[in-house]
Amino acid sequence: MKKSNPPTIREIARLVGVSVNTVSRALNNKPDVSPETKKNIIKTAQLLNYTPNAIARALVQRSTRTIGMVMSDISDPFFGEMVKDAEVFFRSRGYNLILCNTQENFDQEKHSIETLINKRVDGILLTPVGRNGENLQEILKNRVPIVLLGRHFDEPIAPSVTSNDERGGYLATQHLLELGHHKILFINVFHHISSAHDRFLGYQKALREFGIDYDESLLIHASFDLDDVYQKTKKFFYQSGKVTAVIVFCDILAISVMKAVIDVGLTIPRDISIVGFDNINISSLLPIPLTTIDPNKKKMVETASELLLEAIRLDNIKAGNLSIEPTLTIRSSTILSV
Amino acid sequence: MKKSNPPTIREIARLVGVSVNTVSRALNNKPDVSPETKKNIIKTAQLLNYTPNAIARALVQRSTRTIGMVMSDISDPFFGEMVKDAEVFFRSRGYNLILCNTQENFDQEKHSIETLINKRVDGILLTPVGRNGENLQEILKNRVPIVLLGRHFDEPIAPSVTSNDERGGYLATQHLLELGHHKILFINVFHHISSAHDRFLGYQKALREFGIDYDESLLIHASFDLDDVYQKTKKFFYQSGKVTAVIVFCDILAISVMKAVIDVGLTIPRDISIVGFDNINISSLLPIPLTTIDPNKKKMVETASELLLEAIRLDNIKAGNLSIEPTLTIRSSTILSV
Repeated sequence: MKKSNPPTIREIARLVGVSVNTVSRALNNKPDVSPETKKNIIKTAQLLNYTPNAIARALVQRSTRTIGMVMSDISDPFFGEMVKDAEVFFRSRGYNLILCNTQENFDQEKHSIETLINKRVDGILLTPVGRNGENLQEILKNRVPIVLLGRHFDEPIAPSVTSNDERGGYLATQHLLELGHHKILFINVFHHISSAHDRFLGYQKALREFGIDYDESLLIHASFDLDDVYQKTKKFFYQSGKVTAVIVFCDILAISVMKAVIDVGLTIPRDISIVGFDNINISSLLPIPLTTIDPNKKKMVETASELLLEAIRLDNIKAGNLSIEPTLTIRSSTILSV
Repeated sequence: MKKSNPPTIREIARLVGVSVNTVSRALNNKPDVSPETKKNIIKTAQLLNYTPNAIARALVQRSTRTIGMVMSDISDPFFGEMVKDAEVFFRSRGYNLILCNTQENFDQEKHSIETLINKRVDGILLTPVGRNGENLQEILKNRVPIVLLGRHFDEPIAPSVTSNDERGGYLATQHLLELGHHKILFINVFHHISSAHDRFLGYQKALREFGIDYDESLLIHASFDLDDVYQKTKKFFYQSGKVTAVIVFCDILAISVMKAVIDVGLTIPRDISIVGFDNINISSLLPIPLTTIDPNKKKMVETASELLLEAIRLDNIKAGNLSIEPTLTIRSSTILSV
């Protein structure tokens, strides 16, 4: 047999005396092939110079089923904690997890998606950078099942599972209003991120219901950079004395905000109350434990993962957003306004 | 042509009128193929029913060169920060990065490695769970280039780049001894992790040089679980009054330790000085900024990545450990013992 013509599965099947399906299952590590039959098939394939990669794959004693998880900021414990939940979920169902990080960069997201398609993952969990689905063209063209996690698009191009972020923004604001704070600073990331936009809508809604006018000088936009948030917060408090409470887009940035508030000479919570989002593990372990909005990360991840497995099984992608109700977790960083 | 015999690259080359090498480059997205030639090659391949996956791969406008990075704890910002450095390094050199998380689990490490080999990464950066190289058998058999990052094996099976952890443990301990602390608690993770073992050796060395006997009651072993560290620290301080300083294996666990110390009614640094390791971003942003040992993460990552690229280029894996010198970063969590 010429070296340049690898044997077909049909030829291997004929020589071993089994069906083509059985050979295919054996060489792709699918279950339901007896160890002895699998051994014979591999031996025969090796004798016939079947491509080395295929043989190597068959010898790896592990399912090749893989999910790709694309996160937007690996240095935020919020994502690390969700990855751990996803791993538990998928491992128990026979899937491996490989991860990509986009660092909130739209081009990096495109490259990550292309890489995962190239590596032939069975499905993708994606926390998207923007609110449009431009980067999903390859995915949709290749019919790779995908579920968005934690953020959604403006158009229902792909199914998504998010926290009810508008409700979360509302709960955070309502909590502070009920404590008597009427001048509430909102330190947010940029609104191309859907959760930022939705939390802000909730903030505005709560203000409206309390009869308080929205004051646009009480909104700061920052990037996810800890130092950027620190500098902008410090600058605000040097210039302005009227605020008594702050809502921060997420806990990891709230740590930076707290440091800035302390560094300008104010105390928490006596001078300034602070609320974050995410309920990351360290938020309860800070010297001043942080009041936060808990999105129920585990439920978000499990719901998104179930949806993804269903899309993989049924080869069918349902659009639409499933939102998980968040809860307010009150700790020491918020008190009555004096 | 029978459907079950895919055309060879040789046949495509002949029909298009180019070399076999050019066809291979075009179908594998390698550079140096003119867009027009590439188009002709793909068209011909499609006409001849070349396997769909290969065509799809060729159409994805991105290099398929990939590095797999296997980290041991994705929820520790130490790793998130190293991943960001690795991404910058590899992206500028035309490589994509895919990640796996082992969560300090030896079996999970084995599965992660098998998954990455299966996905045919060009090389692997690994922060290993244990000190023996058992899980590397598949890698070494398949001759996949690998460099260990942050930890090393007992035997020089694979090249590694680490912080000089013994020196780091020494610097942390020396700093506290020079401040007059003679009863120093060491909260460490288990010693199957090489950096834990090495930091501990440095601690013992500094004590010896200061003429202080090593007291084994001043060593606590904890897991990477924030709550486990918190509980063990609290229990120690309820039972013992003699310690005036604590060294903690890493910053993220030090946050837990600080909370436990505060919760038993002690103050930092006046009652208890604390030193961590890693210099993660938030360590400088804590209300009590944390004194820590900076391993120079960026240099560690770049050194390991250069080594890996060299191993890929030369198809040659040099054994041996390269250690990067750490520095002591003094902040507010340590003061003179009174």
